Amino acid sequence: MSPLDMLADAVGPRNVLHEAQDLSPYAVDWRGAYRGQPVAVARPGSTAEVAEVVRRCGAMGLAIVPAGGRTGLAGGAVPAANGPPAVVLSLERLNRIRHVDARDFSLVAEAGCVVQTVQAAAAEAGRLFPIQWGAQGTAQIGGMLSTNAGGIRTLRWGNARELVLGLEVVLPDGRVLDDLRRVRKDNSGYALRHLFIGGEGTLGVITAAALRMVPALKRVESAFVAVPSPDAALSLFSRVMGSGAELIGFELCARFCMQMAAKHGVGLRMPLPLEAPWYVMVEIAAAHESVPLRDMLEEALGAALESGEASDAVIAESEAQRAMIWKIREDYPDCSRRDSPAVGTDTSVPVSAVPDFVNAAERALKARWPEGRMAAIGHAGDGNIHLSLHAPEGWAGDRAAWVAHAGEMEPLVNAIAVSLGGSFSAEHGIGQSKRHAMATHKNQVALDLMRTVKAAFDPDGRMNPGKVLP
Amino acid sequence: MSPLDMLADAVGPRNVLHEAQDLSPYAVDWRGAYRGQPVAVARPGSTAEVAEVVRRCGAMGLAIVPAGGRTGLAGGAVPAANGPPAVVLSLERLNRIRHVDARDFSLVAEAGCVVQTVQAAAAEAGRLFPIQWGAQGTAQIGGMLSTNAGGIRTLRWGNARELVLGLEVVLPDGRVLDDLRRVRKDNSGYALRHLFIGGEGTLGVITAAALRMVPALKRVESAFVAVPSPDAALSLFSRVMGSGAELIGFELCARFCMQMAAKHGVGLRMPLPLEAPWYVMVEIAAAHESVPLRDMLEEALGAALESGEASDAVIAESEAQRAMIWKIREDYPDCSRRDSPAVGTDTSVPVSAVPDFVNAAERALKARWPEGRMAAIGHAGDGNIHLSLHAPEGWAGDRAAWVAHAGEMEPLVNAIAVSLGGSFSAEHGIGQSKRHAMATHKNQVALDLMRTVKAAFDPDGRMNPGKVLP
Repeated sequence: MSPLDMLADAVGPRNVLHEAQDLSPYAVDWRGAYRGQPVAVARPGSTAEVAEVVRRCGAMGLAIVPAGGRTGLAGGAVPAANGPPAVVLSLERLNRIRHVDARDFSLVAEAGCVVQTVQAAAAEAGRLFPIQWGAQGTAQIGGMLSTNAGGIRTLRWGNARELVLGLEVVLPDGRVLDDLRRVRKDNSGYALRHLFIGGEGTLGVITAAALRMVPALKRVESAFVAVPSPDAALSLFSRVMGSGAELIGFELCARFCMQMAAKHGVGLRMPLPLEAPWYVMVEIAAAHESVPLRDMLEEALGAALESGEASDAVIAESEAQRAMIWKIREDYPDCSRRDSPAVGTDTSVPVSAVPDFVNAAERALKARWPEGRMAAIGHAGDGNIHLSLHAPEGWAGDRAAWVAHAGEMEPLVNAIAVSLGGSFSAEHGIGQSKRHAMATHKNQVALDLMRTVKAAFDPDGRMNPGKVLP
Repeated sequence: MSPLDMLADAVGPRNVLHEAQDLSPYAVDWRGAYRGQPVAVARPGSTAEVAEVVRRCGAMGLAIVPAGGRTGLAGGAVPAANGPPAVVLSLERLNRIRHVDARDFSLVAEAGCVVQTVQAAAAEAGRLFPIQWGAQGTAQIGGMLSTNAGGIRTLRWGNARELVLGLEVVLPDGRVLDDLRRVRKDNSGYALRHLFIGGEGTLGVITAAALRMVPALKRVESAFVAVPSPDAALSLFSRVMGSGAELIGFELCARFCMQMAAKHGVGLRMPLPLEAPWYVMVEIAAAHESVPLRDMLEEALGAALESGEASDAVIAESEAQRAMIWKIREDYPDCSRRDSPAVGTDTSVPVSAVPDFVNAAERALKARWPEGRMAAIGHAGDGNIHLSLHAPEGWAGDRAAWVAHAGEMEPLVNAIAVSLGGSFSAEHGIGQSKRHAMATHKNQVALDLMRTVKAAFDPDGRMNPGKVLP
């Protein structure tokens, strides 16, 4: 039997894609940086069909590349260019929300559910599914979990990992690990689920998850704050957290980033004139109506202004103003791309090391690429700053030329983060794009244990080959 | 070289115990249910010494049983009675708090730090280390993590697992996995740490951990509430959670439990006459001074009384009254032991299944042991109810006789919990006491994967043999 016949037998002929034009969306990653040609795309409609595809591909020696909304930034969901023949296993048809239980703040969603759909289902039940990031309208639950997605709310509710109560996983040999329980406490042996969460499909295929919901937010207050330095931003962070206000967002943005947003953004209005070197977006929230949130924020910002931690601040006076602050943040990546070629990173350091990190990176980049322009923006409350080095204004070359010129900024910045006790891969995952960094920076004992786990779970290397492990 | 000489060489002669009277505390578990004779007790003073002991014991074919405060309830920290020759590796001398960082809400503590000491260090920094349970004055950080301890605050801040930022682990071959970073976001490969947390020392020895702190609580309000049924308690839970009040404790207690506490407790005063079949202890908190907590609780309880979810309620009017509510809860296990022989369980179900669970268990126990008296108490907000079956008043036999008579209640109650999507081991872990339940109730695919992990990490079976896996 040919691979296509085999797949058609497993999931029905209509759910096997093999024509070039049908395959093409699955053959390139979100950023257009990675290309790989699948043998076919299989779109199973049930967990049993996923298991069947995995089992039969194994028998035919075909690799499996699980794919969801394919919004990942590390090339994890496309076949590796020089990898073995691979079938893309798209979870898009496993898109049922199986269960919503408002009373115990849980829901069960299949891997192919779009994240926004799950958010909406939670909202309909009067609850909040608190993960939030730009791609949520396209990204799917399976990908969110396989990459342990972060976003702007991890400060308060953690990464995707922290929202999982139970998982259903198809293993590399086609068996189903049915651990889709909605229990909050279970100390019965090893916490296997945490291997699949963030495993980027290299140990199995997540087919469904039981997820936590949290009380809906009743009040939110946001501010846009000018600060003199990353150190001042850290003090402000500690002040607001320490005050006991429920901080749900704390983004640090260099002036250069805000300038790019102001220049290229469509319909963006800056809440303050861009006269300060750094800005912070602060958001606090309350799930109970009677929490005096506005007073809390005014008090914290008043004290910050008085102490010099902040030089100016504006609190959003309306939902429209609040939305504008976050639109600036969400539109920033696009504006930055439109501005000029850049090389980027995804590092994290302990929160208290953010100032040292930014300052050290700025010095190192200035010394080596004096013509480059450093952009720093990120989830400072998590210690996760995305540093980029942009080509100078009027750079004559294209993006590839700038990458050839300044591509070494990534290992350089990674090394600084690691030297400060941080990570070279904070929230986007490894995929294909950071395998070299894994080889360079990852603790060798950890890497060895990971190889041990991979060999034990997937001895034939069939699951998403060429990803994660160097 | 003899084992004793080898250990003396590794950790110094003063830190090797081998006389019978020195060994005896390490040879029996907290409940006196498990006994096992160690060859010796080694008390290393550094991570390097732990690694040395592990390596040298491996070379001599000796097993390692890691031990902390030894307050576990599952017999995990004493050698198995029929196990191979084993050295108890006590972490008690690794008791430094290496680092406290108030600005980024983190600390680094060695495995031998007593939990209460870590709580105190956090408080001194103006922060909260939120795990809390009865044994915290004796239990150590390493044991807390190896058993993924729960307690009365998991409802709000999760189990021990959720408080970990990084770990340092000595592996079965003596290598050190140094992943003691204080980063909040790190997606660089498999989440290895989660295997060691809750791994009960069977995959390696946790020697230190980077831990999260949270904002200190500025206000707390507690209530003792009479409710007509577990279902009413669930509605009350959902009402308080749904209101957005920050619920940090929600304990459900059958009247029989409160009667035992009233009868045997020293200095306990019941906040309400024991006229209702069920009681709930509710605690809400706020990290910010200005949250109108009292109003929030009064409003929720007022509505609960009006709707019939509650029949009576008293809010603590002073810190002394608040302390009394929690003293009743904390002293309960002792009171229960003093009352009469009992067989107990440690199950969890989805929160919304608690009423079905309690009702089904009550029916099943009454049918089989009509003379027995069911005690139900637990962390209902986590779905973790501890059910016990007590001997009738005036039971002539001893504890062993009752266990012989009613011991089968444990598998029976476990089966009910599992049939409702729950766990037979919610927070105490498996150790020796629940290995038979692992064999009976654990998902066979999960069990098989666990064996795969164990074989990959500890191929010679040297780490805490006879524990966790059946």
